[in-house]
Amino acid sequence: MKKLQILAGLYLLCSSSTWAVEPVVSAANIQEIRLSLDSVWVVLGGILVFFMQAGFALIESGSVRSKNTINVLMKNYMDACLGGLVFWLIGFGLMFGVNQTGWIGTSYFAPNEMDGWHWNLLFFQMMFAATATTIASGAMAERIHFVAYIVSAAVVSGLIYPIFGAWAWGSLFDGEGWLKALGFIDFAGSTVVHSIGGWVALAGIIVLGPRLGRFGRNGQVHYLAGHNLPLVALGGFILWLAWFGFNAASTVKAEVSIGRIALNTHLAACASAVVYMVYTLIRGKAILMRGTINASLGGLVAITAGCATMSPLFAVMSGAFAGILVSILPVLMEKLRLDDVVDAVTVHGFCGAWGTLAAGLFFEGRMFNSEIIAVQILGIMAAFIWGFGVAFIVFKVLDKVLGGLRVSKQHEQRGLDYTEHAELSYPEFQHDVTFETDDMTKRH
Amino acid sequence: MKKLQILAGLYLLCSSSTWAVEPVVSAANIQEIRLSLDSVWVVLGGILVFFMQAGFALIESGSVRSKNTINVLMKNYMDACLGGLVFWLIGFGLMFGVNQTGWIGTSYFAPNEMDGWHWNLLFFQMMFAATATTIASGAMAERIHFVAYIVSAAVVSGLIYPIFGAWAWGSLFDGEGWLKALGFIDFAGSTVVHSIGGWVALAGIIVLGPRLGRFGRNGQVHYLAGHNLPLVALGGFILWLAWFGFNAASTVKAEVSIGRIALNTHLAACASAVVYMVYTLIRGKAILMRGTINASLGGLVAITAGCATMSPLFAVMSGAFAGILVSILPVLMEKLRLDDVVDAVTVHGFCGAWGTLAAGLFFEGRMFNSEIIAVQILGIMAAFIWGFGVAFIVFKVLDKVLGGLRVSKQHEQRGLDYTEHAELSYPEFQHDVTFETDDMTKRH
Amino acid sequence: MKKLQILAGLYLLCSSSTWAVEPVVSAANIQEIRLSLDSVWVVLGGILVFFMQAGFALIESGSVRSKNTINVLMKNYMDACLGGLVFWLIGFGLMFGVNQTGWIGTSYFAPNEMDGWHWNLLFFQMMFAATATTIASGAMAERIHFVAYIVSAAVVSGLIYPIFGAWAWGSLFDGEGWLKALGFIDFAGSTVVHSIGGWVALAGIIVLGPRLGRFGRNGQVHYLAGHNLPLVALGGFILWLAWFGFNAASTVKAEVSIGRIALNTHLAACASAVVYMVYTLIRGKAILMRGTINASLGGLVAITAGCATMSPLFAVMSGAFAGILVSILPVLMEKLRLDDVVDAVTVHGFCGAWGTLAAGLFFEGRMFNSEIIAVQILGIMAAFIWGFGVAFIVFKVLDKVLGGLRVSKQHEQRGLDYTEHAELSYPEFQHDVTFETDDMTKRH
Repeated sequence: MKKLQILAGLYLLCSSSTWAVEPVVSAANIQEIRLSLDSVWVVLGGILVFFMQAGFALIESGSVRSKNTINVLMKNYMDACLGGLVFWLIGFGLMFGVNQTGWIGTSYFAPNEMDGWHWNLLFFQMMFAATATTIASGAMAERIHFVAYIVSAAVVSGLIYPIFGAWAWGSLFDGEGWLKALGFIDFAGSTVVHSIGGWVALAGIIVLGPRLGRFGRNGQVHYLAGHNLPLVALGGFILWLAWFGFNAASTVKAEVSIGRIALNTHLAACASAVVYMVYTLIRGKAILMRGTINASLGGLVAITAGCATMSPLFAVMSGAFAGILVSILPVLMEKLRLDDVVDAVTVHGFCGAWGTLAAGLFFEGRMFNSEIIAVQILGIMAAFIWGFGVAFIVFKVLDKVLGGLRVSKQHEQRGLDYTEHAELSYPEFQHDVTFETDDMTKRH
Repeated sequence: MKKLQILAGLYLLCSSSTWAVEPVVSAANIQEIRLSLDSVWVVLGGILVFFMQAGFALIESGSVRSKNTINVLMKNYMDACLGGLVFWLIGFGLMFGVNQTGWIGTSYFAPNEMDGWHWNLLFFQMMFAATATTIASGAMAERIHFVAYIVSAAVVSGLIYPIFGAWAWGSLFDGEGWLKALGFIDFAGSTVVHSIGGWVALAGIIVLGPRLGRFGRNGQVHYLAGHNLPLVALGGFILWLAWFGFNAASTVKAEVSIGRIALNTHLAACASAVVYMVYTLIRGKAILMRGTINASLGGLVAITAGCATMSPLFAVMSGAFAGILVSILPVLMEKLRLDDVVDAVTVHGFCGAWGTLAAGLFFEGRMFNSEIIAVQILGIMAAFIWGFGVAFIVFKVLDKVLGGLRVSKQHEQRGLDYTEHAELSYPEFQHDVTFETDDMTKRH
Repeated sequence: MKKLQILAGLYLLCSSSTWAVEPVVSAANIQEIRLSLDSVWVVLGGILVFFMQAGFALIESGSVRSKNTINVLMKNYMDACLGGLVFWLIGFGLMFGVNQTGWIGTSYFAPNEMDGWHWNLLFFQMMFAATATTIASGAMAERIHFVAYIVSAAVVSGLIYPIFGAWAWGSLFDGEGWLKALGFIDFAGSTVVHSIGGWVALAGIIVLGPRLGRFGRNGQVHYLAGHNLPLVALGGFILWLAWFGFNAASTVKAEVSIGRIALNTHLAACASAVVYMVYTLIRGKAILMRGTINASLGGLVAITAGCATMSPLFAVMSGAFAGILVSILPVLMEKLRLDDVVDAVTVHGFCGAWGTLAAGLFFEGRMFNSEIIAVQILGIMAAFIWGFGVAFIVFKVLDKVLGGLRVSKQHEQRGLDYTEHAELSYPEFQHDVTFETDDMTKRH
């Protein structure tokens, strides 16, 4: 009887106040909710990063002459498609598979069976691969063969991007990339995604050479104006939107810190564009829209590495300096007679390098630490050597193998929409471009 | 004293390690979090699916001649508006209300009081209704009376779609649709949404007939080029983006499986577009952008039924075959002198049917099971008979009652923007279309 | 021994059924998940609200003549940038900082250290500030000096918006705004964001005066058609999409109620557009696309205040009446010779005021309560006096200080893209606007 009384009393004690009579929840329940919540966040992040493809497509297609619009849109569309398939087939395995050496992953190719959580990560990472790939398409616009481009895009998605990624971010399973092991800081990919994409673009425009009419014989520079700037502005807004997924979902975990990451991302973009505007006003020049948009994108690239490990003030500074880079570097590129249609090398290559350095300089709690900075510089250099070097070789080989990376002069003059796709972007408004009767035979 | 000691000891035992001194959490707390999390996922899914309206609007408006741009945009905009109101008024009740017979829901019309969770589902499902509705608008573009179209759209949102939906997905409350009871697999609506929309489109273009000038007297085919292909590309990207919500949020529950669903969705779209490209390259034809985009959409439609119940390899195969369908069927449609402005019948009708079959063929754990396949075929056929049949009658009736479903020849030649809306899409650039003085009286 | 038996028995009792052998979960775990979930919801809401900038940019740029496209896009782009920076620097502190008087916040300026959760709120609220700011840009398009506009935008983001916000929504820390203390209902900002933006726009167009050619000497009204209506339609869809974040994430907490909020938001927009359409049909007028889109936006503005505290039926009514306002008020504005390029004063100012009143009239459980209604009217009036009054002074001062708020006649005729930005929006298609040779010197 006494025992029963004690039992009863203890039961009352145990079941008091907060948890009352209801059944109490186990750690298994809570773990399942945590997993579901993280899945929601990572999948939504992947969905947002997918939308970057639309942003790039708009910026690039608006920045070319109307005769090459379809061509550049098609390159972007196929980047998304190939980035998906090729990364699933080999990229994911190379980047995140078991990595014993620190240099390359060796498992999980074309994965068909994995635990649930890893599908989320694959989906998210796949979109990053497509982003890295598509950065180069705009720089090389208006003169590259479509099929050659497609092959190069597959190489970027399947080899160049994931192998560098294995160094900095691998592995998800076993082993660790050599850069990661050194403590390299690149939270969401200033270097891994953007600089790699930018250096591939640089290799591409060197091998291709400038567009016809871009540089005169006596050193004159002719700006070849983009045909539809509202598309460029919308592309800028869409990239900016998508970047919140790119950066804040790189936590790959729902947590309270995502707000500061998103805020840092936003402030860096704002600061970069404002610095560009003020710098231009001071110099008495016209505030170009494409410059303003590129500045905001440069700010976004620059905060990508350090968005999770610096306070807002330093995010503003990271972005502000990117605004300076975007103001100055495109003019230098022109002096070197490098023809980058959308300034991708500046925005993604150089601002990515700066952002990676800034992530080291402004690393919370250990600011201006020389060891950290040294590793950051090592990572920046490794990305340049790998990204530019391999891409240069690939473009040179494609140039030989496919009988020319670049289209013929005649095709370039006529426009790639006509010669490569048998479609016009605005058939009612492009009165100077007409289809000949037999062009219809190329259809269906 | 002894008792107190025991009590103290037990209290320590109960409150040990993981849950320490803090109050322990009840199942009520956890259920509230689970409900909140699921609400976030379903509402975000609905928001993404809403955005499909923008995707369709862009694809359709870019695919018509500029003189009909406003008209098709207005049809899409009103699809969203009517799809919302009419589905709330009657569609939801017919589709998800108490369904004793298995054929039709009979409660929850114009719901004004429901428990919180059901508002989430209503919001999500409402967007599906609007999607099914808007599929037909593009196919019938450039020749249908605006008001007649609006009436037909209300019929699709309020009757055709929800009644078929009641068979396959009903009810949320009591009773079960007859197709659902048979085990019909259509996770996110390859048949329920897309095929139904596609068959409505087929009925519409049969009743309307082809556009003036589309087919010559001696069997010639004239392609009437869309006026703004960048809009089409952006529309493709937006639909693709929105599809992640369409498919992955059809779990109506946040769970770890959403990653594989999103991945399957993506891979199917990629595979379909790549197959279209390779198929076209092999045949030595031009890789058309509108073909590529339609292929990716066909892949998305095809994976919609089975995205939750097959592994990625089969998602790739589902998409790849859709790429073949999109390569071949539009040519057959032209041979039959059916004028589908955006190939909606192929992309939504036929790829939806294929996807529903594929969901049966590749059903995880029970692949190539003849019983499953038989039910899938039954569902596909039921959708055709219902969707095409009822829509055909509706369009025929509208044709009689409203004095012609189709606008006059003169109006069609002049363009529906001028004749139906008194607005031009690009007034500065459409030099051949001008307003007469008295047109202003139609305004305000 | 006995004690041990008792202990063992009780342990079994405690660990029975649902929580078995596994460790039980503490309130700390659950609180961390709740915080993570709320962070996801609020950050996603902020991301969606950011996208409003793109929506406004498209609507406004499509609604102007092509010679002013770049200019209005740049104003929108800089609104986002300044809205971000200035709100971080001073707006957040004024609006949400410690507010002892009820009139103004006095802490948290340029915050660099806060707890995690507040960064989420700052990110979310920052996007609201940018929205309030950008509302005015469209109304004043085609005639305002770029730099003068930029200064006014900074004043709206940094002073006008946050100070009114402090009255209605402050503080996050200590103290309470005076309107909030009275029980003012404005859930997501019909008044705080939209009316304030609309009244700033009204002040702007009064100070600026109408565009050249808008009103004839003898009272004639000339509609100056927007150059690209597909952009306007896409802008409408994007704003609608973003509004789900604007309203549903204003819970600043993930909860089951977000579904009904999103549904109310959607139904109000649908109802408003349908009412506009029916009203126009009845009067035998043309159903204008820009009218339809403005009606849907008016419905969205009108449901913003009360979306969380009324049932769907009343959401439909709130939206429907907004449809009437959008049908009637722009004509009155024209009669008053007020030139509002995008009808921002009607859509945001007046529909915002109506929505705030509707939130009081239809307040769930206490409908048509005169006390509630009185406070709502007080809030509406306070917003007009503050928003219009301060903005009027600011624009007048800018007009004096900067030597004219408005560009010269010559510049207005030539177009602001040429005169302020040295860029053309569609250089291949704008044959009547050409650059002179020395314009290139303004670049770089």
